[in-house]
Amino acid sequence: MTKIEMNNKYWVMRSMPEGSNFSECFELKTENYIELPKGSILTKNIYLSMDAGTRMIMTDREDSYLPPTPIGEKITGTVLSEVVESENPNYLPGQKIRSWGQWADYSIIDPDTMFPSLVDDSEIDLVNYVGILGANGWTAYVGVTETGRAKKGDTFVVSAAAGCTGLLVGQIAKIIGCKVIGIAGTDEKCNLICNDFGFDGAINYKKEEVSNRLKDLCPEGINVYCDHVGGPIAEAVYENMALFGTIAISGLLDYYSSSKRSPGPKNYDLILMKRLRVEGFFSPDFYHREKEFNPILKNWVNENKIKLPFQITKSLEKLPEAYLKLFEGGNIGKVVVEL
Amino acid sequence: MTKIEMNNKYWVMRSMPEGSNFSECFELKTENYIELPKGSILTKNIYLSMDAGTRMIMTDREDSYLPPTPIGEKITGTVLSEVVESENPNYLPGQKIRSWGQWADYSIIDPDTMFPSLVDDSEIDLVNYVGILGANGWTAYVGVTETGRAKKGDTFVVSAAAGCTGLLVGQIAKIIGCKVIGIAGTDEKCNLICNDFGFDGAINYKKEEVSNRLKDLCPEGINVYCDHVGGPIAEAVYENMALFGTIAISGLLDYYSSSKRSPGPKNYDLILMKRLRVEGFFSPDFYHREKEFNPILKNWVNENKIKLPFQITKSLEKLPEAYLKLFEGGNIGKVVVEL
Repeated sequence: MTKIEMNNKYWVMRSMPEGSNFSECFELKTENYIELPKGSILTKNIYLSMDAGTRMIMTDREDSYLPPTPIGEKITGTVLSEVVESENPNYLPGQKIRSWGQWADYSIIDPDTMFPSLVDDSEIDLVNYVGILGANGWTAYVGVTETGRAKKGDTFVVSAAAGCTGLLVGQIAKIIGCKVIGIAGTDEKCNLICNDFGFDGAINYKKEEVSNRLKDLCPEGINVYCDHVGGPIAEAVYENMALFGTIAISGLLDYYSSSKRSPGPKNYDLILMKRLRVEGFFSPDFYHREKEFNPILKNWVNENKIKLPFQITKSLEKLPEAYLKLFEGGNIGKVVVEL
Repeated sequence: MTKIEMNNKYWVMRSMPEGSNFSECFELKTENYIELPKGSILTKNIYLSMDAGTRMIMTDREDSYLPPTPIGEKITGTVLSEVVESENPNYLPGQKIRSWGQWADYSIIDPDTMFPSLVDDSEIDLVNYVGILGANGWTAYVGVTETGRAKKGDTFVVSAAAGCTGLLVGQIAKIIGCKVIGIAGTDEKCNLICNDFGFDGAINYKKEEVSNRLKDLCPEGINVYCDHVGGPIAEAVYENMALFGTIAISGLLDYYSSSKRSPGPKNYDLILMKRLRVEGFFSPDFYHREKEFNPILKNWVNENKIKLPFQITKSLEKLPEAYLKLFEGGNIGKVVVEL
């Protein structure tokens, strides 16, 4: 353990959020030294990735896919950062890495458990490594091609379509050759995904009756649905699935914010009636496949086939507002905090 | 169209059942001639197969997997019968066939739409062709090996375990090398599946708390669940699924008897948390694979690896009581009406 004197501002969990009261539950603190455990790396954070999925480590649920952040502890998430001190020969000061880290000025990274990965920003902006070339990009790629098994000619629907993963999912489904319909919560988002991102149609679920609109837009039935929200939108999609369709679930935003369990879709029995496949998947299960995914994704970026807008908050202090955007429909594309 | 004078008793739909009031909704009638359409076959029914899945053609639901039986029309189901008149050169009088047919003394079978299949009962009792060597056997085989993808060493759970498909599923999972736990509704059934059918454990869901019992019996988590019921039993299984487990749904008994929709499992979000695959499947989708399945299933019968008890009602008049057994837990193994 090496003690390093330095100022570090960091966010801790004051209490578990109920709903989206993050500003009450997150507390900004300052420490004036860091203890770096043997084998670990100290990095200066450059970008903090805001991800709705991390809401699941802010609950007391025992059956979440990740263990909860203990009260009083630093809040964690994916970070892009530069190594400043290293007790590990594989990581050298000056190198940039993407890793699990802390919502703080600095991250202490245990390479054995926190998935650090060296990144090369010589040809592409660093921030892309928490977007197209990070967990969102891999989730979108796996969701469309592997879990979703989308094929040319399929009718494809994605929810939270203007969010980071949703935008990438829709663009990849277009590359595969699908007809792509996005579901989002504002007219601005609906216009954007059709006009700037090549979607074939959009539904504003706050203004339109989703099931009827899907019937109009997808009279042939939906072959693949990438679900990021669950709840009533998922029910409307179930209603319009084609026989032998696939529902690939990588997010269930409607379930994250409540400590009470939401019910499953009331038309759950359509899984049998329509012989559907409903499958959950989760990016940490394929972090180890970065070297397989990123060359494909980089090519698509270079060929102008996929792009991603960023919403950048340039202040650690304003992190709770940036994070809240993910739960209140305030984001288009990737939300990051830049330090 | 050939008109044939003969007496034929048959069941018609008087009204759509609500719940299980079949004796009110089925009406026995008699006709004294039959009109045989061109290309069709007239058969004398020997066995009528009682299948819970046919409950779904007794509803007004538009999204059932099969179209509803119109009020006043003959009720249909799988039958084993002998050809007595044929307008089709592929089927000759005296031949025995399994087919979709009518709940009646005689069936009029359109070979193009009713899946007739010649059966050979020279070496095995005819009735097996609506059991191990029919839709139940194929459903069990596909459920365990293809949709369920069960592997040696897996922990495997099946509901309605003493029903026809459940018994076959459990025995096939044992052949594959799984640890098999059955869920059934009486102590008699639980004893039977463990003592006579080789299951490794049983839970009486009417007396025991299913989730806790599953925790005891499957502390390592459930890899494959063949679901025939849905509802609270499915919720208890979800709770105990292992990461990357599979729920193969070939029946949802809890949803059949009500015209109102039941909700999905309240822990539906475990599909994401545990990265489950939940998939529906349905025997008419693989009727054409009989020649692939039956040699495998026959071998297992000959090697004494699978067996199936029958509950035989020897009276067309008592059909409603036989059918009711499927919905009130009164059956062990396959329920048939013998004429």
